[in-house]
Amino acid sequence: MRMRLDLLGFLLVGALALAQAPASLSPAEKEEAAKIYFDRCAGCHGVLRKGATGPALDPKKMAEKGVEYLKAVIFGGLPGGMPDWGRQGILKEKDIELVARFLLEQPPAPPVPTFEEIKKTWKVQVPPEKRPTKPLHNRNWQNFFGQVLRDTGQVAIIDGDKKELVAIVPTGFATHILRSSATGRYFMAIGRDGKASLIDLWMNPPQVVAESKPCVDARSIESSKFRGYEDKYAVVGCYWPPTMVVLDGLTLEPLKMVSTISYAKGAGELVTEARVAAIVASHFNPEWIVNLKESGQTWLVDYSNLHKKGRPLPITMIDTDLFLHDGGWALKRYFIVAANALNKLIVIDTKTREFTAEVEAGVRPHPGRGSNWEHPTYGPVWATGNIGSPEVTVVGVDPERHPQYAWKVVKRISLPYAGTLFIKTHPNSPWVIVDFPMSPSPQAAASLCAIDKRKLEVTKCWEVPKAQELKARMVHPEFNKGGTEIWVSAWGAKDTPTFIVVYDALTLKEKARITGDWVRTPTGKFNVYNTAYDIY
Amino acid sequence: MRMRLDLLGFLLVGALALAQAPASLSPAEKEEAAKIYFDRCAGCHGVLRKGATGPALDPKKMAEKGVEYLKAVIFGGLPGGMPDWGRQGILKEKDIELVARFLLEQPPAPPVPTFEEIKKTWKVQVPPEKRPTKPLHNRNWQNFFGQVLRDTGQVAIIDGDKKELVAIVPTGFATHILRSSATGRYFMAIGRDGKASLIDLWMNPPQVVAESKPCVDARSIESSKFRGYEDKYAVVGCYWPPTMVVLDGLTLEPLKMVSTISYAKGAGELVTEARVAAIVASHFNPEWIVNLKESGQTWLVDYSNLHKKGRPLPITMIDTDLFLHDGGWALKRYFIVAANALNKLIVIDTKTREFTAEVEAGVRPHPGRGSNWEHPTYGPVWATGNIGSPEVTVVGVDPERHPQYAWKVVKRISLPYAGTLFIKTHPNSPWVIVDFPMSPSPQAAASLCAIDKRKLEVTKCWEVPKAQELKARMVHPEFNKGGTEIWVSAWGAKDTPTFIVVYDALTLKEKARITGDWVRTPTGKFNVYNTAYDIY
Ligand code: DHE
Ligand code: DHE
Ligand code: HEC
Ligand code: HEC
Repeated sequence: MRMRLDLLGFLLVGALALAQAPASLSPAEKEEAAKIYFDRCAGCHGVLRKGATGPALDPKKMAEKGVEYLKAVIFGGLPGGMPDWGRQGILKEKDIELVARFLLEQPPAPPVPTFEEIKKTWKVQVPPEKRPTKPLHNRNWQNFFGQVLRDTGQVAIIDGDKKELVAIVPTGFATHILRSSATGRYFMAIGRDGKASLIDLWMNPPQVVAESKPCVDARSIESSKFRGYEDKYAVVGCYWPPTMVVLDGLTLEPLKMVSTISYAKGAGELVTEARVAAIVASHFNPEWIVNLKESGQTWLVDYSNLHKKGRPLPITMIDTDLFLHDGGWALKRYFIVAANALNKLIVIDTKTREFTAEVEAGVRPHPGRGSNWEHPTYGPVWATGNIGSPEVTVVGVDPERHPQYAWKVVKRISLPYAGTLFIKTHPNSPWVIVDFPMSPSPQAAASLCAIDKRKLEVTKCWEVPKAQELKARMVHPEFNKGGTEIWVSAWGAKDTPTFIVVYDALTLKEKARITGDWVRTPTGKFNVYNTAYDIY
Repeated sequence: MRMRLDLLGFLLVGALALAQAPASLSPAEKEEAAKIYFDRCAGCHGVLRKGATGPALDPKKMAEKGVEYLKAVIFGGLPGGMPDWGRQGILKEKDIELVARFLLEQPPAPPVPTFEEIKKTWKVQVPPEKRPTKPLHNRNWQNFFGQVLRDTGQVAIIDGDKKELVAIVPTGFATHILRSSATGRYFMAIGRDGKASLIDLWMNPPQVVAESKPCVDARSIESSKFRGYEDKYAVVGCYWPPTMVVLDGLTLEPLKMVSTISYAKGAGELVTEARVAAIVASHFNPEWIVNLKESGQTWLVDYSNLHKKGRPLPITMIDTDLFLHDGGWALKRYFIVAANALNKLIVIDTKTREFTAEVEAGVRPHPGRGSNWEHPTYGPVWATGNIGSPEVTVVGVDPERHPQYAWKVVKRISLPYAGTLFIKTHPNSPWVIVDFPMSPSPQAAASLCAIDKRKLEVTKCWEVPKAQELKARMVHPEFNKGGTEIWVSAWGAKDTPTFIVVYDALTLKEKARITGDWVRTPTGKFNVYNTAYDIY
């Protein structure tokens, strides 16, 4: 009998605690709050609220802080990287109240779809054999830009030569990034809702030819690029469920699921929400480099045996470090990924398939894919911006011909602001362009800086006219194919059309603005040629 | 408010349902029941009761069947492979009542130890540099037998030449199997409690020189055997948590944990209790073949890079089939593993590293490691017994020189009984010996059969004198090094000493009996030479 009483007592205490909490959410409210949380917060705090870029949001801890504190933080942000959702006008007071109360309750367990369920999401609009064998238009498609329209769930295809809108195609909810297929012919888009879309740029107009939704929540997608495997497979990295899904490259048919639930660095706690961050396709081997954020592992995933019985998939599990996020190539050989909360860069040699080095970056490095150039003294270098410190970190990357600088920070270039997300260059431009969208200052967020590649210092910073007015943050510089232009997006709220500004890549003079009612929440943009051939 | 009331209502209904259930267990009873369940039932029904060899035991389903039915089944067993725990005298009436009631309650979630916790279990009694460089005794240690004393948690080391007890060493709780290191010098034992013990046979007397407990529940252990890696690493396959743990081969220090939570056959549901069944060390590559039971995957795990930065561990994940359990070598090249609930054998070519074939076995094939011999017509064959049908299934295994028989059943040899667990032969013996410990008939369980390797039929079956009297089942035949003797254990209850019987491997005449107060619950036994060199 004792047990039963104890248990009842426990249940009643639980119920009382709930009764005293500031007004529990109704099922409808809960659903709405969960949606907002999933869309706006889960990326940093985790679907299960166990923390990642942002801290864990444990219901007990949240209750101690109290609902008023939570509302204030959600409205106004925090200096360490918590966005000011209210001040930016993205969340209304009602939303903030809802989410704050939602944080007091246990997070609902999100579903884990089965393979059968994800297979049902698979749709081929135009089968490979019905697709054109050459472009059906006369445009210079290799200089197309794919512009993510984040909150409309669309991608705009823009003619880079003519600066003309070519097509707007529907993609996933809160579309995150694009990647090019090996040949550049296809763009692959991934939405935060886990929906992958294959866009054929040879169609007239370009359109989505296949899609599937292998996850509930995702951030990354990549194609197979090794010789002989061009466009054969694709891979999606899921945030939820913690899974990597291999797809057919031309139809996006789901082929194989691998759980990424894993032990922290192979020798720690079991991480049930080990999310997949950056993925790149190796040039030296038929493999993808897949980074697991919370468990600090980099996996080399060999896709060359999938046609055999039992779909063998060799995965080399390397313990690198925690909080792996984004990264890119140096010399198209070394993959450099940020272990962001550790202020570190992790270097993988994809030729020898080894974990080569660790480099101390600034505070919360965020390279996007980083930038590559040749410096007269240091030889080939690669650079990253940092969210938490006003610095571009420049690293020597050539152990063979410049061993004395390899995997050392050769320069920490001072910036006027912190809050950098992206940095970009092109071999034909003397500049490295830096943005500041994460700065709490609207003026900084509306600004850009240009770094001199030889002097390794900032030559010029400027505020982009009209950006502040539109409450927009300038984000994600990208060069055109020839390296003669720099495109940057003005990321505003969904209800206000903004613009994409185009600069001359030599003089840094404004050359053009792409505008229109469709230019809403433009964020990442990807030039076909530069993305396909890893030029940045 | 509605939500709060609903919730309270729900909680009260829950409490009431508990109140009406036939007398809930007290915490002490629950603990005891969990222990019995874990020891006796979890192996077949799963720690989380999600089923495996036996069906899922869902509390709701169990409540519908009622406590009286459950008690009857636990006492008397079921024809499909459920043991008769009461009739065998292993569980007392009180235990059966306890377990039956335990099945009505939600299974307690077992803990997932962290790496730090398992590291604390690591103990080196004699460090490698203090171990002898040659045997400290004059015994023929290559003909030692390691005899598992299941319920005493010990292993007896027996001199096979003299049939003398050499040492009794303490190992894990409900010790399961032994495996030999590459050289045969060490035995590695694994207990159901996940404790691994390294026994040095060169010490005088042989003793445990290192141990660690990388799991809560385990069944398999293996050493690294590829040239250059002899005894360098060890691996433990866990049932709970679903994990594979790599250890240092000479000290059993835990080095790396890999979660085996995975999708069923790479294209199904997420299996959170994907347990590790059989593991073998390849002769062609520096790798282990690791079989995941509930998710139907065979992993080729390459241990040759672990010394590098980040401990890279390449794992080739092959989708084979569900319910993988035990298996062994054919031609020391093909690993054949039973997908037992599917009545199938799965063949992996460890040279080409491919999933080669599937073979239809009898009902619930249970090879142990199976048996190999050369047949005049069929060439090299490999055979398995079956728990659910009275049959030894003989399979052609030589695609190169006998392609017409390769991966075909060349003969289904009829047996007088079902319930076979193990089958064993030796190149120097004309016989394949078969046991029947899973037969519900005490007379069959006390019997053995000898199969003629050329005629492919049973020549002789006999009941082992005194086995029935001691309520013992004859289990696990094993040959001595020379192949001149067959040893079989009489597996009784813990409170009754039994015996190990030794037969002449030509005449099948009883040659000796090993007895003594220490001979309690003898189950598997492993001859050093035959185990190290895969002779069976
Ligand atoms: C793992 C990851 C990558 C690397 C992908 C790869 O290379 O395979 C990445 C890259 C990116 C890239 C690719 C940069 C490149 O040049 O390759 C872009 C443009 C980008 C725009 C944004 N990201 Fe991203 N991003 C996350 C995750 C990631 N972002 C988040 O978890 C985070 C912080 C929060 C969230 O809820 O999603 C987040 C928020 C954003 C944005 O808010 C951005 C600025 C605008 C948007 O459109 O959502 N992320
Ligand atoms: C996965 C697995 C293997 C293959 C290991 C390898 O090759 O790496 C195996 C092998 C084995 C082998 C190795 C045979 C060989 O010759 O290699 C033996 C002797 C053995 C004696 C038993 N096993 Fe075993 N055994 C299980 C699992 C396994 N047993 C169970 O899950 C099960 C059914 C239930 C349980 O709760 O453990 C179970 C019950 C038993 C027994 O009851 C046996 C008969 C007696 C005992 O000592 O526990 N199992
Ligand atoms: C871009 C990443 C990011 C996103 C998206 C994000 N956060 Fe944060 N959040 C952070 C970081 C980083 C901190 C810690 C900041 C600090 O301490 O200075 C934080 C802190 C917080 C805190 C304070 C926690 C404490 O213990 O004091 C709360 C509450 C919070 N976030 C809620 C939210 C909610 C709700 C959302 C969505 C509406 C959200 N966050 C979206 C990064 C993010
Ligand atoms: C060697 C494997 C094995 C072990 C160990 C084992 N079982 Fe079973 N059990 C089975 C199999 C197989 C069946 C199904 C038999 C059939 O249907 O004929 C079964 C059936 C059952 C059933 C009936 C389920 C139903 O839905 O009717 C119960 C109850 C049960 N087992 C409980 C237990 C308990 C309790 C223990 C431990 C004390 C245990 N089992 C140990 C293999 C096992």
